[in-house]
Amino acid sequence: MPAEPATVISLPQAAAPAAPRRPSDLTEQRGTRRVAFAPKYGGEPVEADVRYLWCGAPDAPTVIVQGGISADRDVCSGRERAAGWWDTLVAEGAAIDLSTCRVLSIDWLVPEDIGGVASVSSEDQAAALAALVDELGIGRVQAFVGSSYGAMVGLAFAARHPGKLKSLVLLAGAHRPHPLSTAQRSVQRGIVRLGLASGRTGEALALARQLAMTTYRGSEEFSRRFAAGPEWRDGRFHFPVEDYLEHAGRRFVERFDPERFLALSESIDLHDVAPEDISAPTTLVGFPSDRLVPLADLCELQRRLGGTATLEVLDSPYGHDAFLKETVQLAPVLRQALNDCYGVPKP
Amino acid sequence: MPAEPATVISLPQAAAPAAPRRPSDLTEQRGTRRVAFAPKYGGEPVEADVRYLWCGAPDAPTVIVQGGISADRDVCSGRERAAGWWDTLVAEGAAIDLSTCRVLSIDWLVPEDIGGVASVSSEDQAAALAALVDELGIGRVQAFVGSSYGAMVGLAFAARHPGKLKSLVLLAGAHRPHPLSTAQRSVQRGIVRLGLASGRTGEALALARQLAMTTYRGSEEFSRRFAAGPEWRDGRFHFPVEDYLEHAGRRFVERFDPERFLALSESIDLHDVAPEDISAPTTLVGFPSDRLVPLADLCELQRRLGGTATLEVLDSPYGHDAFLKETVQLAPVLRQALNDCYGVPKP
Repeated sequence: MPAEPATVISLPQAAAPAAPRRPSDLTEQRGTRRVAFAPKYGGEPVEADVRYLWCGAPDAPTVIVQGGISADRDVCSGRERAAGWWDTLVAEGAAIDLSTCRVLSIDWLVPEDIGGVASVSSEDQAAALAALVDELGIGRVQAFVGSSYGAMVGLAFAARHPGKLKSLVLLAGAHRPHPLSTAQRSVQRGIVRLGLASGRTGEALALARQLAMTTYRGSEEFSRRFAAGPEWRDGRFHFPVEDYLEHAGRRFVERFDPERFLALSESIDLHDVAPEDISAPTTLVGFPSDRLVPLADLCELQRRLGGTATLEVLDSPYGHDAFLKETVQLAPVLRQALNDCYGVPKP
Repeated sequence: MPAEPATVISLPQAAAPAAPRRPSDLTEQRGTRRVAFAPKYGGEPVEADVRYLWCGAPDAPTVIVQGGISADRDVCSGRERAAGWWDTLVAEGAAIDLSTCRVLSIDWLVPEDIGGVASVSSEDQAAALAALVDELGIGRVQAFVGSSYGAMVGLAFAARHPGKLKSLVLLAGAHRPHPLSTAQRSVQRGIVRLGLASGRTGEALALARQLAMTTYRGSEEFSRRFAAGPEWRDGRFHFPVEDYLEHAGRRFVERFDPERFLALSESIDLHDVAPEDISAPTTLVGFPSDRLVPLADLCELQRRLGGTATLEVLDSPYGHDAFLKETVQLAPVLRQALNDCYGVPKP
């Protein structure tokens, strides 16, 4: 794959370190770097092209930010994109403040990116990030903020590359997948394989996404939004929740391909990190309504972590997706956890 | 369909009503009766062949017992069958004591049984049962004990045919399907329709059953049973929970057909009974680990029922399937609820 040219936007630093930073005093690199590492299920070391975004205050400490399997490196808005997937929380003046830190994020690797191995692991993603940290001359990141699969990769990063980070902030992700969640993802993969085998890939991927949506959102939210009765349409009854699920399924098919889905879904279920191996100070954030990553698993993770660990529990009707939806509740928690990150006094 | 000949096993009654009943003093009818009713989504009244089992003490009051959509009329063991689906709780001397009451149960009707209507409703099942009660000369049943879909049909029976029953006992079923559960069943039906359209019906039905299993069982049970890591086999990783699900899927395909599954699954989601319309005294039994029928819905049902209503909450790791698994806990609850049923002194 040809390396994507990095867009580098670099402006002169403010003269006095204490002076308020203007919005334009930001740097943004959005490009590709070739890195080398040995994949967990590969054996031989491989070279892989990693697509990354690195943006924020040019002289500030770097914070890695990674989301779920369907999130990409575009965590915040920028010059050539209107929106990032977490841009309420990652922006100038936001909880992850681009005027006082520099955010690094990558597109998840899939097996075809790393020599066509059978499976990609959370450790592989962590190894690619660690190699990228070296390539970019960062040395040590201030924090790794990971949500969902990103939290799993954060744990793998802290366990395998302890010298490359100072702290962890993990939302809705744990040291292991819950076996019930593995069961639900296994069925999703079964649906996609059935679609691939029968030439009905789009329909199957949409159905798998529909199933995933039933695991992401809270039970109360479903109850409140979809209480109405069915409608007779096109020869059968349609339930209100079906229209919602079908819409979500169609949108997913437009932006995701089945092989990528299979690989990253499996990667969640292969994740297995011993919390005892992690010494970095860690802030965990969990949601009681999250059925995909039960709070009990975050409690166990907190107990077993090798370093200091805080667990913040936030009430939300949004289940696992609370890490995307509860921006108002999350902002102060993230600010507190990243407090050490702000090397430049705030305006 | 030709009427199945009823097997009638009838032995002389004990001479003195107070004498202990011998095991052989039981009657069993297992046959088919033609009944007439107007299906909810049909318009015209239809005649339908109802396959039923009616067994127990010949002079005792009748108790209707119905289970989930995959249960059949064979609720207890008998002369020609080694096991019934609830035979720990329905037997001589058991909580539903065949020596002091007589149990009636039917095979669920599907659209092809009732004139090929588009959909079958819980009211249709209740109407068929009510007509059967008349056909058999029962007059009024002592209780309707319904679990899961059977509880929904019990509510429909009590709302539409109040003169035909004295009391209701409902386990893990409510006046409405929870919208999240509707979402999960909608995806199951989508999988089966994909299978029918692509000629891979068996695989699809098995996958739908796998998904159903993830909704029936408790989260803690999955966590305890399937904590081990994956195995590499046949070209991909297999997770312990997948072996369990695949086994359950294969077994289901052997005994169920896709059209029946589609119709009964949809029937659950079409269920809608106003609790205020029900005046029969009701015992509700719910399980906090039941994610398919949340306890909150049983609490709402209890509040809204028109007659007296008791809610028994039983702890169990087995989720929705607790009504099948928690026989030791359920026995005293059922005995208490059916107390009025025992017209003959116990030996």
